[in-house]
Amino acid sequence: MTRPADALRPVTMTPDFVAAPLASLLVATGGTRVLCTASLEEKVPPFRLASGGGWLTAEYAMLPGSTPQRVRRAVSAGKVDGRATEIQRLVGRSLRAGFDLDAIGPRTLWIDCDVIEADGGTRTASITGGYAVARIAIERLIHDGLAQRAALLPAVAAVSVGICAGEPRLDLDYVLDSKADVDMNVVMNHDGHLIEVQGTGERTTFSRQQLDRLLDLAEAGIRELFAHQEAAVAAALAHRPGCASV
Amino acid sequence: MTRPADALRPVTMTPDFVAAPLASLLVATGGTRVLCTASLEEKVPPFRLASGGGWLTAEYAMLPGSTPQRVRRAVSAGKVDGRATEIQRLVGRSLRAGFDLDAIGPRTLWIDCDVIEADGGTRTASITGGYAVARIAIERLIHDGLAQRAALLPAVAAVSVGICAGEPRLDLDYVLDSKADVDMNVVMNHDGHLIEVQGTGERTTFSRQQLDRLLDLAEAGIRELFAHQEAAVAAALAHRPGCASV
Amino acid sequence: MTRPADALRPVTMTPDFVAAPLASLLVATGGTRVLCTASLEEKVPPFRLASGGGWLTAEYAMLPGSTPQRVRRAVSAGKVDGRATEIQRLVGRSLRAGFDLDAIGPRTLWIDCDVIEADGGTRTASITGGYAVARIAIERLIHDGLAQRAALLPAVAAVSVGICAGEPRLDLDYVLDSKADVDMNVVMNHDGHLIEVQGTGERTTFSRQQLDRLLDLAEAGIRELFAHQEAAVAAALAHRPGCASV
Amino acid sequence: MTRPADALRPVTMTPDFVAAPLASLLVATGGTRVLCTASLEEKVPPFRLASGGGWLTAEYAMLPGSTPQRVRRAVSAGKVDGRATEIQRLVGRSLRAGFDLDAIGPRTLWIDCDVIEADGGTRTASITGGYAVARIAIERLIHDGLAQRAALLPAVAAVSVGICAGEPRLDLDYVLDSKADVDMNVVMNHDGHLIEVQGTGERTTFSRQQLDRLLDLAEAGIRELFAHQEAAVAAALAHRPGCASV
Amino acid sequence: MTRPADALRPVTMTPDFVAAPLASLLVATGGTRVLCTASLEEKVPPFRLASGGGWLTAEYAMLPGSTPQRVRRAVSAGKVDGRATEIQRLVGRSLRAGFDLDAIGPRTLWIDCDVIEADGGTRTASITGGYAVARIAIERLIHDGLAQRAALLPAVAAVSVGICAGEPRLDLDYVLDSKADVDMNVVMNHDGHLIEVQGTGERTTFSRQQLDRLLDLAEAGIRELFAHQEAAVAAALAHRPGCASV
Amino acid sequence: MTRPADALRPVTMTPDFVAAPLASLLVATGGTRVLCTASLEEKVPPFRLASGGGWLTAEYAMLPGSTPQRVRRAVSAGKVDGRATEIQRLVGRSLRAGFDLDAIGPRTLWIDCDVIEADGGTRTASITGGYAVARIAIERLIHDGLAQRAALLPAVAAVSVGICAGEPRLDLDYVLDSKADVDMNVVMNHDGHLIEVQGTGERTTFSRQQLDRLLDLAEAGIRELFAHQEAAVAAALAHRPGCASV
Repeated sequence: MTRPADALRPVTMTPDFVAAPLASLLVATGGTRVLCTASLEEKVPPFRLASGGGWLTAEYAMLPGSTPQRVRRAVSAGKVDGRATEIQRLVGRSLRAGFDLDAIGPRTLWIDCDVIEADGGTRTASITGGYAVARIAIERLIHDGLAQRAALLPAVAAVSVGICAGEPRLDLDYVLDSKADVDMNVVMNHDGHLIEVQGTGERTTFSRQQLDRLLDLAEAGIRELFAHQEAAVAAALAHRPGCASV
Repeated sequence: MTRPADALRPVTMTPDFVAAPLASLLVATGGTRVLCTASLEEKVPPFRLASGGGWLTAEYAMLPGSTPQRVRRAVSAGKVDGRATEIQRLVGRSLRAGFDLDAIGPRTLWIDCDVIEADGGTRTASITGGYAVARIAIERLIHDGLAQRAALLPAVAAVSVGICAGEPRLDLDYVLDSKADVDMNVVMNHDGHLIEVQGTGERTTFSRQQLDRLLDLAEAGIRELFAHQEAAVAAALAHRPGCASV
Repeated sequence: MTRPADALRPVTMTPDFVAAPLASLLVATGGTRVLCTASLEEKVPPFRLASGGGWLTAEYAMLPGSTPQRVRRAVSAGKVDGRATEIQRLVGRSLRAGFDLDAIGPRTLWIDCDVIEADGGTRTASITGGYAVARIAIERLIHDGLAQRAALLPAVAAVSVGICAGEPRLDLDYVLDSKADVDMNVVMNHDGHLIEVQGTGERTTFSRQQLDRLLDLAEAGIRELFAHQEAAVAAALAHRPGCASV
Repeated sequence: MTRPADALRPVTMTPDFVAAPLASLLVATGGTRVLCTASLEEKVPPFRLASGGGWLTAEYAMLPGSTPQRVRRAVSAGKVDGRATEIQRLVGRSLRAGFDLDAIGPRTLWIDCDVIEADGGTRTASITGGYAVARIAIERLIHDGLAQRAALLPAVAAVSVGICAGEPRLDLDYVLDSKADVDMNVVMNHDGHLIEVQGTGERTTFSRQQLDRLLDLAEAGIRELFAHQEAAVAAALAHRPGCASV
Repeated sequence: MTRPADALRPVTMTPDFVAAPLASLLVATGGTRVLCTASLEEKVPPFRLASGGGWLTAEYAMLPGSTPQRVRRAVSAGKVDGRATEIQRLVGRSLRAGFDLDAIGPRTLWIDCDVIEADGGTRTASITGGYAVARIAIERLIHDGLAQRAALLPAVAAVSVGICAGEPRLDLDYVLDSKADVDMNVVMNHDGHLIEVQGTGERTTFSRQQLDRLLDLAEAGIRELFAHQEAAVAAALAHRPGCASV
Repeated sequence: MTRPADALRPVTMTPDFVAAPLASLLVATGGTRVLCTASLEEKVPPFRLASGGGWLTAEYAMLPGSTPQRVRRAVSAGKVDGRATEIQRLVGRSLRAGFDLDAIGPRTLWIDCDVIEADGGTRTASITGGYAVARIAIERLIHDGLAQRAALLPAVAAVSVGICAGEPRLDLDYVLDSKADVDMNVVMNHDGHLIEVQGTGERTTFSRQQLDRLLDLAEAGIRELFAHQEAAVAAALAHRPGCASV
């Protein structure tokens, strides 16, 4: 039985998959799994020094075994992977829209998104899981009095949509993505406002009407993802409310 | 007298600004100037070998003196500039949408976009100028029988739009861009179809209605840019119709 | 209740944790977890060309969130991590002792060991898990007629031992390792022969008698690890005997 | 009609070609064009800290489209270009001979020489244009009271000479340079004293007498270049006497 | 006449082979020659700041002409040589066991081991020669009142042993090393205690009994090396007792 | 007794200082010592393929302990040393003038110049010693019938000259070089013709008359160096006439 065009793949979020960092979460959407971890550094980049506030930065990488054909490590290739650079800039920008970093004090939250298994949509899974893990981390800072509740803005999640064989589709897996004519990543917040829209005509162009239809699909999918995030955040905080590991 | 919210900055295109390469063009939009050059390489990347067709790749850099505060060279910084990587991937994707590269034979067209002076909108100027210079290059290949006329698809151009102080604005210069709440780059073809939409809420989020209004503004601006491109291409080909420098 | 000086931490091995590569296995020893994956490349390094046989190479990295204080990525640090280089050379050498690579045909098996969580002993866990995943991969090649059964030599596993507060200890976790005076990694095969012994007096020197006692401890621990490996290999092959993913 | 052996190619200097930096100048000698920009940094390298004075450093690069065959960017090649390194060290040394940097305060003047089009003699054009742009920059600092007039030493310019088919020639273009047996770059100041002489027997050796004849040719050519520099400096300062852009 | 299995190759140590650094020594063991130099830096790495004590760090490289087939320079290869990294970490650890660095004040001793000629055993020659040169350097610091005599711990030396054609052998040269089935490096101090044992079954595995026999051989060889070190240190200090070059 | 202004420092050349490579020579001029080695590679760079002839390339580096203050390794600094790049290009060009590489067959001669101790004039010592070692290597190729005698052109040597306290001086050591107002490196062949002249006014400029006087001094010094080279070449060939090590 095939998945309907407007259905997400099954989503699971496993908070505190790794105990060492401030927060961690393994997010799976269908065959795509991304390990998101949040680490704290007690300093900020130079351009944030004057503000007194904090910063959030994201890094993204695919593990070598995450695809059938091995992915070469960036350090072995001896150069920065352009695709990874672009993705981690997108993840960082999107997550920063979900928090008021002036309210977390002069510290940097590092969000690492390492792809364990890749079956399409790794960048949107990184945003959705990355928001959840950053949220858990900041809730723990708030619990310990290190950040203010004002740091929490409406939640952020992301999904991919596209046009495959003329049909608008939600949440492209690798097979769909490979044959998509148009590919779009949509980042939205809980108020239904857009944070980022990146639509690309990979093999063809697309009309304004098609853009609208894709945004409708994305919005519905993202609504579902917010519920998964909320559940995961609640579970993590029930298990360990503050920063200290028990 | 201030520029109206729906007006482009003055545009000039100087084809054959540099005589050495297959094609060159200096594009200026207001205070932003980008030198676009097209060079030919008689080989293709491995993934295009089987096709028998060609490829187009773009590189983007800012000259050190292009801004009031000197821009450090990537090679001196000893690492790839993430922003430049992201931009040149966008430029390459956008330009490839303007051509059927199967019809240019097994060769690579390198489009280099070097920013001489930066006053906002360097990436969209790189796309608009880059398309014109690629078009001149491919017309010269066609003239000399090295490519087929079928290589030419509807023209491609790009412009930035944004929301500044609540007002939708076309073609952001540096001052506008610095205070924009939402920033969007739109790449469109001559048929009015979208090739790429990249909208980012820099300081705030944006609604679906605002997205629509921004796309309207962008489409009108891009229509004007197509006329500039056509004039520049015609001038270049009148001056030197084929590949050989005279 | 504290762990006896001659007891291993609890060991679990989860084969096929990732479905994409030829083989994968998540090995946990106490709080240390390493994701081992095996990928196939249909070529060999130049020095193996003449032999007609294959090669096995290993890479090792720690994920940024694998420790309480974030680990910087090698590619971001812009230089090779000396410790990682040393470890992956050790892992590669050790695993090659477990196979006759002349019998796997002209192909390279890449074994990637990515540390999900680090609590001491990541290099020996990488060897123990790496052998198991390489074994599963080669059994699958044999099943499909791509390698010969002669490729399988006696199994290989590794464990750390050390002297802490004067007492010889098996399988050091991070806390023990931090205060160990002597730290030793022992790699042994199923015949009880040594493949690699790396003993270091971190804070003090050690006598020949102490060396002997440590080797006794290690040998007993490694015997237990062989049983875990066998069970994991059997489970993986029952689930998917050949190379093709089902 | 061919150019006489003792004639320069046509020289033009366009000051303030780029408005953003402290000073800029596009210098053309025949088909060679170099964009020279001067940027100010309010710090000095460690070895100049104690002096209280300033520093001048130069960087040189060729744009990818500056020659018929595309020049690969240094950052893409992943390594420093030996030729560029050698040239920028020569440019820096030569320009520092034209100024008393103790008199410009604790700041660094960056002189960037980016070759827009290359037809031989790009390093000497970089020195000649680089001096003019540094001079404009320092005159602007003096005008604003940030440097002392004592910073100005006799002007510096450079030209290439060589022996082609047995005949000493002034100002080699690419075609001449390619077949030159001896190639020499001469940097001289307005007092007729030498700052740098770099003569290389590319295909043959050369006698002391030939060296003398080449220096005579170079001196005459450099005298002409001083006049061009003076005119460009005067024009730039008339247009914008101080640092502030109007 | 062949060398007995338990005999060292001829050893010579030439102290102060280079006059510039604080101490230097050319060590030769048979055809292997390593130039060891000790340089002082008046700062310590961050993790030693709090201690008030010093640090010792080692670097190792092979000169390009040190083997019949030229060794490529690491900087030309554009990447760190894994083997060199592993060796210099071993050398540093081993030498630090010979000194109490808390007693040399907040300074770093750099020990550089550059292989002039390689005929097997370069890493153990680097440790043996490196200890001697570090000892001379620290004795000179003590002489000048810059370090305390307590800095001197029992001397450290190293030798390689191996099993070739079934026979345990001391001090492998290149030919022996190439055909060794087991290769072991042993670092020991003057009290007969072990500092580091690194045994590798290159082509085969080895038993506990074989390990014991190899350690016996190594201990006897190292005893001889201590005598050579003592003579070299005495000669160097007679010639120049303190830091100042005469 | 101070050295006269027109006297070289004592010169010694020790051929075959290292036995492994095709040829080696330790050249000392006063306190400066450079180890020059020649290695053969049986291939040529792409631009020499068509010619059927060979190539010669040079590399230059300073050992870390070659100066009182330690020299950081290029690979540790993580970037190419501009000064070393410039020097090795000069050495390569100069040595290629001493040989007709069309007559050595399709092979590359690598000349490595590693500075053991630096007291001024390391680049000219590298050329003088580098020529001698390249000559020995090529004579050995000729002896074995692998190159033709026509490969040998007039010998090449180099020396530094300068103006110190107003006085022209031959062969600057470090102290003289540090206070030199003008610094010049002269490369000449046995016919008295110039190969390279690099004169730099470090602190001042210099007149044409001063240039002449410096060239006179250099020529006399280089005459002496030719005699040292001849003696060293003769000694090396008497000891080992052909390529094979005995």
